[in-house]
Amino acid sequence: MPNQLFENIKQLRLTPLLNQGAFGVEKEGQRVTGLGALSQQPHPSELGSRTFHPYIATDFAEMQTELVTDTFEQTVDVQQQLLALEQVLQSSMADSEYIWPLSMPPLLPDDELTIPISEYTPAVKAYRDYLTKRYGRRLQMVSGIHYNFSLSSTLIVRLFDEYYHDHYVSLKDFSDALYIQIAQNYVRYHYVLTYLFGASPIAEPGFLEDMTKLPEHPVRSLRSSELFGYSNKQLLIHFDSVAAYVDSMRQAIANGDLISEREFYGTVRLRSHSLDQMLETGVDYLEFRGFDINPYTATGIDQQQLDFLHLFFMYLLSLPKLSGDLATQIQTGRQLNDTVALENPLQPSQLQTQLKTVMADLAQFITDYHLNERFKQAWTVMNERVQDHRQTLSYRLTQAIEEDSLKAFALKQAKRFKCELTETPYQLQGYTDMELSTQMLMFDAFQKGLHVAVLDRDEQFIELTYQHHHELVKNGNITSLDRLISGPLVDNKVVTKILLASHGMRVPAGAEYTALETAVADYQAAFGQRAIVIKPKHSNMGAGITTFLTRPSEADFIAAFKLAQTYDQQILVEEFIAGSEYRFLVMNHKVQAVLERIPANVVGDGRSTIAQLVAKKNDNPLRGEAHLTPLQNIRLSERELLMLKQQGYRPEDVPLRGSQVFLLQNSNVSNGGDSVDVTDEMDQSYFAIAEQAADILNLNITGIDIIVPNLYQPYDPEHPEMAVVLEANYNPAMLMHLFPMMGQARRVSMTVLQLLFPELAIETD
Amino acid sequence: MPNQLFENIKQLRLTPLLNQGAFGVEKEGQRVTGLGALSQQPHPSELGSRTFHPYIATDFAEMQTELVTDTFEQTVDVQQQLLALEQVLQSSMADSEYIWPLSMPPLLPDDELTIPISEYTPAVKAYRDYLTKRYGRRLQMVSGIHYNFSLSSTLIVRLFDEYYHDHYVSLKDFSDALYIQIAQNYVRYHYVLTYLFGASPIAEPGFLEDMTKLPEHPVRSLRSSELFGYSNKQLLIHFDSVAAYVDSMRQAIANGDLISEREFYGTVRLRSHSLDQMLETGVDYLEFRGFDINPYTATGIDQQQLDFLHLFFMYLLSLPKLSGDLATQIQTGRQLNDTVALENPLQPSQLQTQLKTVMADLAQFITDYHLNERFKQAWTVMNERVQDHRQTLSYRLTQAIEEDSLKAFALKQAKRFKCELTETPYQLQGYTDMELSTQMLMFDAFQKGLHVAVLDRDEQFIELTYQHHHELVKNGNITSLDRLISGPLVDNKVVTKILLASHGMRVPAGAEYTALETAVADYQAAFGQRAIVIKPKHSNMGAGITTFLTRPSEADFIAAFKLAQTYDQQILVEEFIAGSEYRFLVMNHKVQAVLERIPANVVGDGRSTIAQLVAKKNDNPLRGEAHLTPLQNIRLSERELLMLKQQGYRPEDVPLRGSQVFLLQNSNVSNGGDSVDVTDEMDQSYFAIAEQAADILNLNITGIDIIVPNLYQPYDPEHPEMAVVLEANYNPAMLMHLFPMMGQARRVSMTVLQLLFPELAIETD
Repeated sequence: MPNQLFENIKQLRLTPLLNQGAFGVEKEGQRVTGLGALSQQPHPSELGSRTFHPYIATDFAEMQTELVTDTFEQTVDVQQQLLALEQVLQSSMADSEYIWPLSMPPLLPDDELTIPISEYTPAVKAYRDYLTKRYGRRLQMVSGIHYNFSLSSTLIVRLFDEYYHDHYVSLKDFSDALYIQIAQNYVRYHYVLTYLFGASPIAEPGFLEDMTKLPEHPVRSLRSSELFGYSNKQLLIHFDSVAAYVDSMRQAIANGDLISEREFYGTVRLRSHSLDQMLETGVDYLEFRGFDINPYTATGIDQQQLDFLHLFFMYLLSLPKLSGDLATQIQTGRQLNDTVALENPLQPSQLQTQLKTVMADLAQFITDYHLNERFKQAWTVMNERVQDHRQTLSYRLTQAIEEDSLKAFALKQAKRFKCELTETPYQLQGYTDMELSTQMLMFDAFQKGLHVAVLDRDEQFIELTYQHHHELVKNGNITSLDRLISGPLVDNKVVTKILLASHGMRVPAGAEYTALETAVADYQAAFGQRAIVIKPKHSNMGAGITTFLTRPSEADFIAAFKLAQTYDQQILVEEFIAGSEYRFLVMNHKVQAVLERIPANVVGDGRSTIAQLVAKKNDNPLRGEAHLTPLQNIRLSERELLMLKQQGYRPEDVPLRGSQVFLLQNSNVSNGGDSVDVTDEMDQSYFAIAEQAADILNLNITGIDIIVPNLYQPYDPEHPEMAVVLEANYNPAMLMHLFPMMGQARRVSMTVLQLLFPELAIETD
Repeated sequence: MPNQLFENIKQLRLTPLLNQGAFGVEKEGQRVTGLGALSQQPHPSELGSRTFHPYIATDFAEMQTELVTDTFEQTVDVQQQLLALEQVLQSSMADSEYIWPLSMPPLLPDDELTIPISEYTPAVKAYRDYLTKRYGRRLQMVSGIHYNFSLSSTLIVRLFDEYYHDHYVSLKDFSDALYIQIAQNYVRYHYVLTYLFGASPIAEPGFLEDMTKLPEHPVRSLRSSELFGYSNKQLLIHFDSVAAYVDSMRQAIANGDLISEREFYGTVRLRSHSLDQMLETGVDYLEFRGFDINPYTATGIDQQQLDFLHLFFMYLLSLPKLSGDLATQIQTGRQLNDTVALENPLQPSQLQTQLKTVMADLAQFITDYHLNERFKQAWTVMNERVQDHRQTLSYRLTQAIEEDSLKAFALKQAKRFKCELTETPYQLQGYTDMELSTQMLMFDAFQKGLHVAVLDRDEQFIELTYQHHHELVKNGNITSLDRLISGPLVDNKVVTKILLASHGMRVPAGAEYTALETAVADYQAAFGQRAIVIKPKHSNMGAGITTFLTRPSEADFIAAFKLAQTYDQQILVEEFIAGSEYRFLVMNHKVQAVLERIPANVVGDGRSTIAQLVAKKNDNPLRGEAHLTPLQNIRLSERELLMLKQQGYRPEDVPLRGSQVFLLQNSNVSNGGDSVDVTDEMDQSYFAIAEQAADILNLNITGIDIIVPNLYQPYDPEHPEMAVVLEANYNPAMLMHLFPMMGQARRVSMTVLQLLFPELAIETD
């Protein structure tokens, strides 16, 4: 089997580049009602405008959604983005809508002209009208998966530079030859994929005006068959060379067989920006259009399929050039495919021997070129289908047919997928390893049609693009809207306080120390009977902070100072301000949300122990561990036990009904605290304080922490102690506003998008 | 001695607050020629505009400079800023100018009207004309030190809150009482300071039209005497109370004795924004005007004097209220002062007994209230002067008189001070513990008249202000001119490269790895025969970086990868681009300077060993250790020895004459590298590349590192390898442009100010 090309790849030690490539997927799907009828609702308005949306649009019909991924170097990235898009789509639809998980459409109306076509621009409508006239609307209601593929450009360049520059006039010619080779063999071996992926055994009523024209028995793939799938009739597009392909395509257009290249329904297309461009710079990628929607996965195509296709294309490249007359070979390929497509899936294939040979060859191919583990996994799954036809999708679907329909099965799957995709709205499927705030921002961006590129996943670095406007975002809201100096500014609590105080704002009195002696002397002199806080200058999540609600003894003061010193050399000693602390999220000079954070606590029911109350509170699905959920579990670690002990409690004690027991002093949500939205409760007069603080610090997106003794009592400038500003943040948490434990959710991630892309005129709810 | 006030301070444990206060100094000084004549040159144009300059202006005469410090809580800060201002002033004057270090002016012209008055506004000129008429110009040529002081406001508040609120109607009344007490006793005990600080034993010729009117012998302080110093004749301003002070001042103005409050030449003034304001909100601070310039220190007043004054004022507060008739007491004080002022400094004082008593009291005061060490130091210095009159400034100056003149001595001191202040132009005296780049920016800001506040000294955080426009600067050029996102952006080399490459810029090919296996496979596959660099993703100063100029063996690759892994989990493997690396400093979309950095090296002279050549090169005063100088010493540590060994050298080898021996590969100036300004040599076509990179990354102030094989050859877009962009910086070093080892210096810190304050229209040279 190994041809010269692959011998060279091996010799030049380029086999690792076989694992690479460029991949993209398009997936169509019908919106249906809970009863399986075509949805009559318009495309979801939440999804921005179809005129520019790069990911979520409509295909032929108004309810026929189309998801388009970006091009990625790894198939796993394709799968992740597709999953995310599916979630965004399904979250944006009406509660009563689902995505039909089959290629063959659900029950169609008697009069096909009542199927609403998507006609959001005049050009779109004109093309739909043309298709209606030429093929009828029913056929256009079939959905599928398109898969775009190109080889690693490094592989092509290295091969050309180190060997093939003597054999080909140019890099382009060499590259084109590789793609032509894949395309030719693809047509020849298409039947393998139809066997493995075929998933359209029957059509639902209404697909044909005369349903009796359909095969009498279920088949592997109606959609992949010559007769019932898309087809350009007898049109012959040549695959002898790129030039021949372009010529025949131009001829077909000139003849009126095709209105444009896009009407060519072949199983594989050579792709470039245009036919002219292709002649000049060569094939950019191949587009494979032959895949049924896999109803066992929400994305319509699973990871094994994506990887198997990649493997399969490389395998096609490794095969000898088709011998003899190419047209005959292609004809043979079509016949084999049609045979497999129309076989009864309940029987083994007539081509099982050939299929087994291909699978054996593929296994050898994987071994020969040391391909990645993922190829082996994909091969294993597919090989099971070859060895046993009962593992094929078409067999399994055929088993699910009730009364000549897959409707019940399809609805069950559709509802399951929608549930899975929407049950954790604080996550974006496919990106759940990233910070939740970044996931939410990406959700919003995908929804509104901004282009999203994850530039550095571990560092939560994304780029958002609308037309030629690029914006970088890190950690959900670090953007170009703020100033470079603001990071070090708000990280420096002393400087922050100096600035706020110099503009007349009330901040906690205090000073910065390195020497214990000076701090002790000052505390004796300057603080009187006031409560004080001792904390490291640069602290994290409340570590090393001690609060004294009454004047501490000198020994206690020293102990607390030394504790803080274990975290930082510089120690702050500040007055402690009594009152509730509120987080004001300010964006663009306006308060967007106000949150009260309450330290971890439980409220007694008169029956349960503290430990039981904690467990019960942690049952809230919004609570979890490791920042994977909007709220964090309350723990019963040493800190909490100490705090309980100070109040005379043990975990096994049963608090009185209605009595609140605190487990920590620190109100960070990340320490199990509660979050309560009080935006509507907080007197508006305090908004101005937060906005002024943000302006003084020159922050566009910030969280300002303010102590307010009574949120209902209007602020009185004669009593500045009514609003004491503690600190600001340049990367304020958004999640606690998006998913507060209590109170109204505020979609503040969308506000970030609004500010970054004012030209989009996004509205938030 | 201890009165009730201080008993209360002790009891309330407020003694630490005695160490605090608020302090400011004004210092006048005449610009003179190297021969001791008044300079005829105008006020230095480098010093911006006197109409708003907060620190450096002119007093009566055009050459009479006036330095004004900010108000600080610590005297040490006053001294530091004063030193910095003195450096800025003297660095901005002509090479041939000096600052006369005596209170009494140098030789004055026969016709006093030829002394040019400073008349930069009509109002200024009008006042100068008035003074000329009333006092003559000669008297106005006397210079001195003013010292502004207020008590710790916390001390006043705590005392009032915890004790005196029953004794005074208001905090203001209590506070005013404290200041009145100091002011009264100050007049009474002024002679102590005249003895200790007096430094005007004689006047230079021309001070009086009739010089014979002067005392026949040298005195302690002509300037502090009733007859020869400033004086409002028989004017009596009352110090019985604030109200009495204001009343008598208003009366004097109404009578025409004073044109305004500012003409009052008393040794102490009560100060507030205005007399009206003083009645309403009380005394803000006291202004003490009686101090001769100390010719033994560049700032005219040294740290011990500043601290002794602080101590003395508190001591005055601790004394019993003056008994009997206040006017008589004040008259007594004046007489005592005049006695001391006109004594022959070569003799002990007639008041030595009283002086010794005061010093003993002060010693007790320090002990009683556990005052800081610095008070003890100041007391010790002053006590020596009391115990031995030969230690007084006036004695020492009298010894220095030659031919009835101090000119020779004064010029020697003036030249010494100028030399000391200007010999390390890369430092700002008073702030030498800060980063050099921040020192330079502060120098420029002080020079141009921006207000400078050091908000956090350890963190190089300063605030610059012009009128109501505030700008924060950290580390010399982290400002509001750049975006918050830019910090993480350029810190992330992978994202930086993605962005640059996506805009068509040439960057080194490469990828990011965590797994060794993947990296090895890729390096085999993707890099061919190219040279490569292996480095930690987040690296610092070149640590963990290995460069292979030819394709490494697998073992070497693995070793280098593992070395990098000791610094970071993420490892970058990149192609190595041959050619010189240049730093393009881009500000405001324009290249400001281009620097070539050459790794640590020596050039053989045919006689010296490598070790000797290193030592010789390190003799350059710009080279030093620990970033205290613009260039760093070349070391001979393990790294350098290894590099030598690889070239077959030992430190004791003598390289051939003219041969260059490199001691490191890394070209960082911080590793002993050379810096060569090539702004004028670099072909302009490369400027556009650097500017484009800055624009792509949305950076206003940045250093772009670009490999250019031939800086003279214009860039050809057909050959993108002629400019490979390596990385960008958001806090680019400025020092190497300000003080390159070779080539033209570029004042890029001033450019930062220009950009931050365009309204100032600063010009750079």
